Amino acid sequence: MSEADRIARLVSRFGLPGERVVVASGDDAAVNRPGDAVSVTSIDAVVEGVHFELPAWPLEAVGHKAVAAALSDLAAMGATAGEVYVAAGIPRSMGEAAFDSLCDGIAAAAEFSGAAIAGGDLSAAGQLWLSVTVVGYAAEETIVTRGGARPGDVVVVTGDLGSARRAIELIAGGAKHDDARLTKQFTPRPRLAAGASLAHHGATAMIDISDGLARDAGHIGRASGAKLAIELSKLPLASGIADAEFAATSGEEYELLATVPESILAEAQHGVGEHGVALTAIGRVVEVAAAEDEGAEMLDASGGSVQLRGFDHFD
Amino acid sequence: MSEADRIARLVSRFGLPGERVVVASGDDAAVNRPGDAVSVTSIDAVVEGVHFELPAWPLEAVGHKAVAAALSDLAAMGATAGEVYVAAGIPRSMGEAAFDSLCDGIAAAAEFSGAAIAGGDLSAAGQLWLSVTVVGYAAEETIVTRGGARPGDVVVVTGDLGSARRAIELIAGGAKHDDARLTKQFTPRPRLAAGASLAHHGATAMIDISDGLARDAGHIGRASGAKLAIELSKLPLASGIADAEFAATSGEEYELLATVPESILAEAQHGVGEHGVALTAIGRVVEVAAAEDEGAEMLDASGGSVQLRGFDHFD
Repeated sequence: MSEADRIARLVSRFGLPGERVVVASGDDAAVNRPGDAVSVTSIDAVVEGVHFELPAWPLEAVGHKAVAAALSDLAAMGATAGEVYVAAGIPRSMGEAAFDSLCDGIAAAAEFSGAAIAGGDLSAAGQLWLSVTVVGYAAEETIVTRGGARPGDVVVVTGDLGSARRAIELIAGGAKHDDARLTKQFTPRPRLAAGASLAHHGATAMIDISDGLARDAGHIGRASGAKLAIELSKLPLASGIADAEFAATSGEEYELLATVPESILAEAQHGVGEHGVALTAIGRVVEVAAAEDEGAEMLDASGGSVQLRGFDHFD
Repeated sequence: MSEADRIARLVSRFGLPGERVVVASGDDAAVNRPGDAVSVTSIDAVVEGVHFELPAWPLEAVGHKAVAAALSDLAAMGATAGEVYVAAGIPRSMGEAAFDSLCDGIAAAAEFSGAAIAGGDLSAAGQLWLSVTVVGYAAEETIVTRGGARPGDVVVVTGDLGSARRAIELIAGGAKHDDARLTKQFTPRPRLAAGASLAHHGATAMIDISDGLARDAGHIGRASGAKLAIELSKLPLASGIADAEFAATSGEEYELLATVPESILAEAQHGVGEHGVALTAIGRVVEVAAAEDEGAEMLDASGGSVQLRGFDHFD
């Protein structure tokens, strides 16, 4: 199969929605009409041997995760998904069926999020890798950065935590591809609807959890010049997860961590809940006296600061 | 050097211009305000061992070429360069000085074109690769696709041809990095100003020459439902190139091939010339009776059809 055939097959898997498209794939570039919206753009890559291993990972999961991880960054800004552009390095040994599986995953992740695959570039490579650029759209006034958390705001998180880290351990232990406990790694679902709802309701800061709750909370804290004080006992734990410290250091969750003024907490929970997603209050934003105190602090049931095991640099 | 340090270093090399930027690199995604413009997006990857060899290529040239090749697709739409997003797979053995050279090339290519490096993602990898997404902007009515060539239009090409293919041969033969004849491979200059001028003057179709003039002319012909009849004797040959067939099959030239109504040829040549770039008329768009005649035809001095050596499938 030629490169052109493969790109055509990839793009044909999932047609472009008409709304913003002026020129679709097949010319030198894709042309889109943002109108009054601002565009929100992120690039993310996954590499065999670094982000996934073969054959421990099904190829469909590799494609799905690469696209979902990139789209999760749009969710964290409160944007709606628009277009997906995929560059891929494909080992010469990969056959058509395997390539189709990879495309199935790419297409499924895009489709789930209402995104269109608008362009791509394929190349031979010594190992499999995917580089995914995603473009989303939002009204400028609803964009939520990491830097707007204010003392007194409530810290909230979508969904539940811990299953992504457990899945990595299970995959390393030889789990079967169809083990339901691997879902958060193999078919992560970016929280686009929840993110847009949080943005609409007035979230002050937001990030998607890719490095683990504790570390990502630190990112919001430092960007906002404040500290996120999080009560470990309040973390929503995934089914089968009993250890809050494990959950707080579970990366690649693709849940959203946000800060909201207390006055809008109930309506934000209702709004996010309408998309079938739980929104749990887990802490507070507190003022700090000095820059070195900015970041995040994990608290135990008695209010004491918890040093997470094997996790020294999350502030 | 950590991934975060390396990304910060890459982005710091070339700051974001303020015009369209709402949120710069460092948050979950970059946010841009296109306003009345349409956005033009393309993705392009280069891979060690496929598009370049090390150490035959200086790392600065690898970075420069990857970005320039992507930006050339924007030139071919008549768009102005906006933002550049770079994902890279970096071998663990690459040291800081080598990484800096790679960044120098990326920054130089972006700077030459007035583009901003707005985001990135770095990963370890077994071989060096770069995936570059570029976003440009244009007024919707000035976008030039491949599909608008009309019978009677004049076929024009910017600059001169042949040196890109010669450079590949010289590199394979062990040429030194500072050999001036390698410029078109090591520091290609996307024809953004010329492309915008051609679009402004009313070019009907346009493509950048990446596969070789003959093949890319075929792309315009088929997309437009016509044939581009090109006189080999009229091709502008690069210094030291004597063979028009060699020039017509020289890929990665990143010159622009366009079609223009005859009535605007002189003013288009003047407009492109103001940017220091020659625009040479090399043929005509002709009507075809059947779809299988669409594409391009290379003609010799007596008007006979030339079958290019070792180049069977350019139609």
